[in-house]
Amino acid sequence: MRKPAPDIVVGRLPLYLRALGRVLDTSESDHISSKQLSEMLGMSPAQIRKDLSLFGDFGKQGTGYDIAYLIEQLENILKLSNEWPVVVVGAGHIGKAVANYQGFSHQGFRISRLFDADAKKIGQMVGNVEVQDVAELERTVRSDGIKVGIITVPAGFAQETCDRLISAGVQSILCYAPIYLTVPTGVRVRYNDPVVQLQRLTYYLDE
Amino acid sequence: MRKPAPDIVVGRLPLYLRALGRVLDTSESDHISSKQLSEMLGMSPAQIRKDLSLFGDFGKQGTGYDIAYLIEQLENILKLSNEWPVVVVGAGHIGKAVANYQGFSHQGFRISRLFDADAKKIGQMVGNVEVQDVAELERTVRSDGIKVGIITVPAGFAQETCDRLISAGVQSILCYAPIYLTVPTGVRVRYNDPVVQLQRLTYYLDE
Repeated sequence: MRKPAPDIVVGRLPLYLRALGRVLDTSESDHISSKQLSEMLGMSPAQIRKDLSLFGDFGKQGTGYDIAYLIEQLENILKLSNEWPVVVVGAGHIGKAVANYQGFSHQGFRISRLFDADAKKIGQMVGNVEVQDVAELERTVRSDGIKVGIITVPAGFAQETCDRLISAGVQSILCYAPIYLTVPTGVRVRYNDPVVQLQRLTYYLDE
Repeated sequence: MRKPAPDIVVGRLPLYLRALGRVLDTSESDHISSKQLSEMLGMSPAQIRKDLSLFGDFGKQGTGYDIAYLIEQLENILKLSNEWPVVVVGAGHIGKAVANYQGFSHQGFRISRLFDADAKKIGQMVGNVEVQDVAELERTVRSDGIKVGIITVPAGFAQETCDRLISAGVQSILCYAPIYLTVPTGVRVRYNDPVVQLQRLTYYLDE
């Protein structure tokens, strides 16, 4: 058993996966060098080689990485070989956009449940799922065995939603609400907030 | 002139800012220790002190950080003291959710333009902006002096949209399309894709 990789490295694996998927669709070669990959990603080739070496010996000096094989290995490492069912809580603008998003398929995820508290929304179809009453959240998530949740409720309801998801067995949460969630050890949260992303970019702008 | 901070540190400043904003709204004290801040963020106090020390001497041993002062300093560092006008290209589900998002105000940004190529969408109001014909993109973005752009078009149109934004003067881009963008030196891109975020979380799940 390898020791767990640093989270910052884990965070780069999906980027490698995405770039490789793009190469697989467009490249004439079935191999790629760390240099070519680095040019797609704006990183150094040494960083890529070092990151990947934490998980195994995937490349060969001279020929580089076998694209299909490296994709398969990264999918195994990230546990994406099967589709994870995902619960979305909040059927507002963002929740609907997420539930309609076509990018999940073949990437390891399937939106399987969508909840809202608004009686007017309950029963509506969004993408392939029907909006369900949030009162049924715990029971449904638990009986489906769902581990992955996306929170798209307003900030004021996000912590409560988070607590309910966790009590129903969810361990991975993507939060769109502009708030910090308090979670117990073993539960991981990522934040997909456009403000935080933009604020990181303005540092580099000339005023 | 300080030398530029590592991007990874810059990326944590918006998180500090967000946590501090929350504390300012709820705390009875006007100071916060790195330990308290670290508990909100799930990081070590030493990391927070080290990050902040790259930008100045903001805290005092014993009393911690003055919350309002640190917020002001972080806003200055991240150049958020004025509102940046933001252009959104693509008025689909995600573009509409972004344009409707209330979280930008008082955080340094204002959605000022929204473009789409679909004649049926042009002229519609989304949030506070009217959807404009993307044919007018370069002229409008240049005359407004907009530096920040959000791309919410389908993946197949994202690179072209990116090129057009850059030619019109945009230097900071947040991309929701599941694609890697090629940009010239000096332009920075962040990706807000739920798939990449979720893939980073599944690594930690038990299968």
